[in-house]
Amino acid sequence: MSHEQYQSAIQSLHECMEACNHCYDACLKEEDVSMMAQCIRLDRECADICAYLEQSLVRGTPFAAELAQVCAKICEACGNECKKHDHDHCQKCAEACFKCADACKSIA
Amino acid sequence: MSHEQYQSAIQSLHECMEACNHCYDACLKEEDVSMMAQCIRLDRECADICAYLEQSLVRGTPFAAELAQVCAKICEACGNECKKHDHDHCQKCAEACFKCADACKSIA
Amino acid sequence: MSHEQYQSAIQSLHECMEACNHCYDACLKEEDVSMMAQCIRLDRECADICAYLEQSLVRGTPFAAELAQVCAKICEACGNECKKHDHDHCQKCAEACFKCADACKSIA
Amino acid sequence: MSHEQYQSAIQSLHECMEACNHCYDACLKEEDVSMMAQCIRLDRECADICAYLEQSLVRGTPFAAELAQVCAKICEACGNECKKHDHDHCQKCAEACFKCADACKSIA
Repeated sequence: MSHEQYQSAIQSLHECMEACNHCYDACLKEEDVSMMAQCIRLDRECADICAYLEQSLVRGTPFAAELAQVCAKICEACGNECKKHDHDHCQKCAEACFKCADACKSIA
Repeated sequence: MSHEQYQSAIQSLHECMEACNHCYDACLKEEDVSMMAQCIRLDRECADICAYLEQSLVRGTPFAAELAQVCAKICEACGNECKKHDHDHCQKCAEACFKCADACKSIA
Repeated sequence: MSHEQYQSAIQSLHECMEACNHCYDACLKEEDVSMMAQCIRLDRECADICAYLEQSLVRGTPFAAELAQVCAKICEACGNECKKHDHDHCQKCAEACFKCADACKSIA
Repeated sequence: MSHEQYQSAIQSLHECMEACNHCYDACLKEEDVSMMAQCIRLDRECADICAYLEQSLVRGTPFAAELAQVCAKICEACGNECKKHDHDHCQKCAEACFKCADACKSIA
């Protein structure tokens, strides 16, 4: 696939990176940050791998399938953590993570 | 400024990262790669700093102005190199770079 | 300067990236994470820019001075936050940050 | 494994990131860059994933095994390309890549 064919996945990766970083930022501002520690950690892991894969796809990496497989797994883990929390930023992040996991699986 | 206020800059950074990586990929496929060596090098520098700043803005970095100032300079250098080459991917990249440099200057 | 001439700065950047990520990891495991929120945030900012600059120097970026100037500022901010906290990981991180800030200033 | 246990792998990743970026930089300065196009491309892929995994391990990522598996594959591909070329920087890079691939496999 060329980067044109990845366009939909790139969009999902971008939205997931944004949602994870918003959630990370908002978690650090919550009153009880201790409750959000695992969410903060996974938000960073997920934002970083989505940003990484996004750029890799755009530059025509020969390792799209392998990277997408890892990214799908990290997105799912982050989505599962986020959906445990009632905060709006967590629920939105969970949604973006699961959508992105699906997009990654279609590449992997 | 919050990440909402940066939305337009984030879009420009994203488009510039895409244009630079497309140009990088296409330059490596040109017949005469030697002619494109400096373009390849600056495409990577520019794509990487745009991806970096994009993610930093989304997560509410306290260093937006300082990072945007460097990014503007790198975008201009990449744009100036790209515009020397007639390839369509270089011309498009130059355009994205100059637009992004302006967006960065408005933050810096 | 070539990457050989940057060898000492690269080492300081690498040690600072490690100290910041150890501190980030340890802060997320502290009992009172809320107290460490700003430390967590700056640890990530600092780790990311050090990793970025380290790799940029190794690949011969033409933007060493500009990137090092920003990195010095972020290292100082992170060091100043970390030194407020008595945890061993924070004190070690502060030390690595200030050492790295000095190395960056010698490039910038 | 904690980051202390990963210390040897982190060292191999760091050396591989350095070797790949040196090779990338040197390839772009060769007389016949066209011959080196695939080497340049894989050097960037490999340097980026090594830098990524290195930082992930230091911050205690829960996804060490999955990321290390992809990294091993990319290191091997880069090493196989580099060893085709007689340049000293390519031969050194191939060596660093194969050593790093082994370190990654021990984690994966």
